[in-house]
Amino acid sequence: MHALVWDGQNLKVDSRHSEPEVRAGRAVIRVRLAGICSTDLQICRGYMGFRGIPGHEFVGEVQDGARELLGKRVVGEINFACGQCEFCNRGLGRHCPNRTVMGILGVDGSFAEFMSVPVQNLHLVPDSLEDEEAVFTEPLAAAFEILEQIQLDHGHEVLVMGDGKLGILCAQVLKLTGARVTVLGKHQEKLALVKRTGVRTLLLSDWKPRLFDVVVEATGSESGLKLALSAVRPRGTLILKSTIAGAHNVSLAPLVINEITVIGSRCGLFPPALDALAEKSVLVKPLIERVYPLLEGVEAVAHAEKPESRKILLRP
Amino acid sequence: MHALVWDGQNLKVDSRHSEPEVRAGRAVIRVRLAGICSTDLQICRGYMGFRGIPGHEFVGEVQDGARELLGKRVVGEINFACGQCEFCNRGLGRHCPNRTVMGILGVDGSFAEFMSVPVQNLHLVPDSLEDEEAVFTEPLAAAFEILEQIQLDHGHEVLVMGDGKLGILCAQVLKLTGARVTVLGKHQEKLALVKRTGVRTLLLSDWKPRLFDVVVEATGSESGLKLALSAVRPRGTLILKSTIAGAHNVSLAPLVINEITVIGSRCGLFPPALDALAEKSVLVKPLIERVYPLLEGVEAVAHAEKPESRKILLRP
Repeated sequence: MHALVWDGQNLKVDSRHSEPEVRAGRAVIRVRLAGICSTDLQICRGYMGFRGIPGHEFVGEVQDGARELLGKRVVGEINFACGQCEFCNRGLGRHCPNRTVMGILGVDGSFAEFMSVPVQNLHLVPDSLEDEEAVFTEPLAAAFEILEQIQLDHGHEVLVMGDGKLGILCAQVLKLTGARVTVLGKHQEKLALVKRTGVRTLLLSDWKPRLFDVVVEATGSESGLKLALSAVRPRGTLILKSTIAGAHNVSLAPLVINEITVIGSRCGLFPPALDALAEKSVLVKPLIERVYPLLEGVEAVAHAEKPESRKILLRP
Repeated sequence: MHALVWDGQNLKVDSRHSEPEVRAGRAVIRVRLAGICSTDLQICRGYMGFRGIPGHEFVGEVQDGARELLGKRVVGEINFACGQCEFCNRGLGRHCPNRTVMGILGVDGSFAEFMSVPVQNLHLVPDSLEDEEAVFTEPLAAAFEILEQIQLDHGHEVLVMGDGKLGILCAQVLKLTGARVTVLGKHQEKLALVKRTGVRTLLLSDWKPRLFDVVVEATGSESGLKLALSAVRPRGTLILKSTIAGAHNVSLAPLVINEITVIGSRCGLFPPALDALAEKSVLVKPLIERVYPLLEGVEAVAHAEKPESRKILLRP
């Protein structure tokens, strides 16, 4: 099959990659559409020491290995848990210490014609959803994860830092609670996308120091982190939404002095994301910049690297 | 009066310091005993750019300015709030943006014969308490602050990092909830002090990687912070209890991947601390290493700088 492969040095299209085998408890998925995420870009800079087929955002069709799902459209949660440990028993397979992670840790991902996913990780895609919407389920679930971790309502002032895909998804999800949400970003065009959803927008060049109850850091940059820390009110909450490789040089004294709560936030549950997509309560299709054929995957990743680009998709 | 003064360069005893004036809403306190805290040591390295009389732990006697309290023994909360702003209105004067802080920010502290404290910050000391116990009210309140921020019970495994004064107070307070508390430290003798209270102890040299539900960082060192981050289970909580001047070089990716909550924790309310001291449910007197006369304050601070020293007190 065709697959995009990171060998630790280079990203290449391999046109003779072996197809995933049928295994107990796993389904073979024919990928219909896959999304390129910032984590994939970091993987191509050495993050997690990953080797293999990257990609953890997809919508596909069950090809083999799960009779009752054959031919159905599915999306899949990215953490492949052991199902046996203390975390799995507590319903926290996303934190299973024995897990592999699709296209990130120890197992191939979605930048290929076919992929293998545990059947228990799959979720059916409602017929009303287009592939171009369903492919956003994973990053949208990550945005919904914030609502599993904190309680928000219309009394809260929220700042989302970063107008990338994740920032824009987070802003829309947090807005659903009634909170007053502002996105701070560098790109007028990206901010314009989210403005129509009722979220307030602010260009970084117009930023004036101000305090928020909750700040969501979704820029993945050290300067973003510093600004985020300065924008949280005393006793407020900072959500770290970007996994950033490497060390940061930050002063944590303000965190103690102002008794700020910092919450790391990663993958979320798929059902709320699928529901929101089905209800069209979150806008995703305007986030798509371009769909590349998988065979042009190297160019697609290079395009996704550009700061001004929106979501880049791959179609095998 | 005699006072210990930090002028930004040197710490000196000034024997002709002017006494604090009587002002509306303030009481003049004759200091009976004052405690030297790690924050004081940092102030003498430039922290907060403070100039004046350091010291924020004390027990004293009301000398003037609050008729109904004249001659009574008191302790005092360290944040002098404006009483007018949004934070003050919400009962969070400890976070008042207009506040001064005793011996730390904009106002003289307790390393003197007399000091001025807002009457509303004062708390009467029960007769059953010795000065050598009451002087621990402020750091003990800081330990109780953790229980204002998180819920603990006997189902929780807690690690307190650091066998300094604050670490030992935190461990004892958290033990009151029934949680299983372990203190990790470098000093066998200090660990022995806390062992009798039912807290488990562990020498850093015997540390083997292990995960805890809650980790309290009370070492104030960068290496402590790194070890603390590595010892929190996924979805667990890290309490930062030390204010540390300067920037840290830490990787925050594990915080996001493991969805850890980091909570900065600073000053606490005095009543629970005074209650615990009155009930003798927390052991404090064995923490005292030595009481110096105020006139030997410079030597006292030098003594407090030694890593193996316990609490150093000053008696004016």
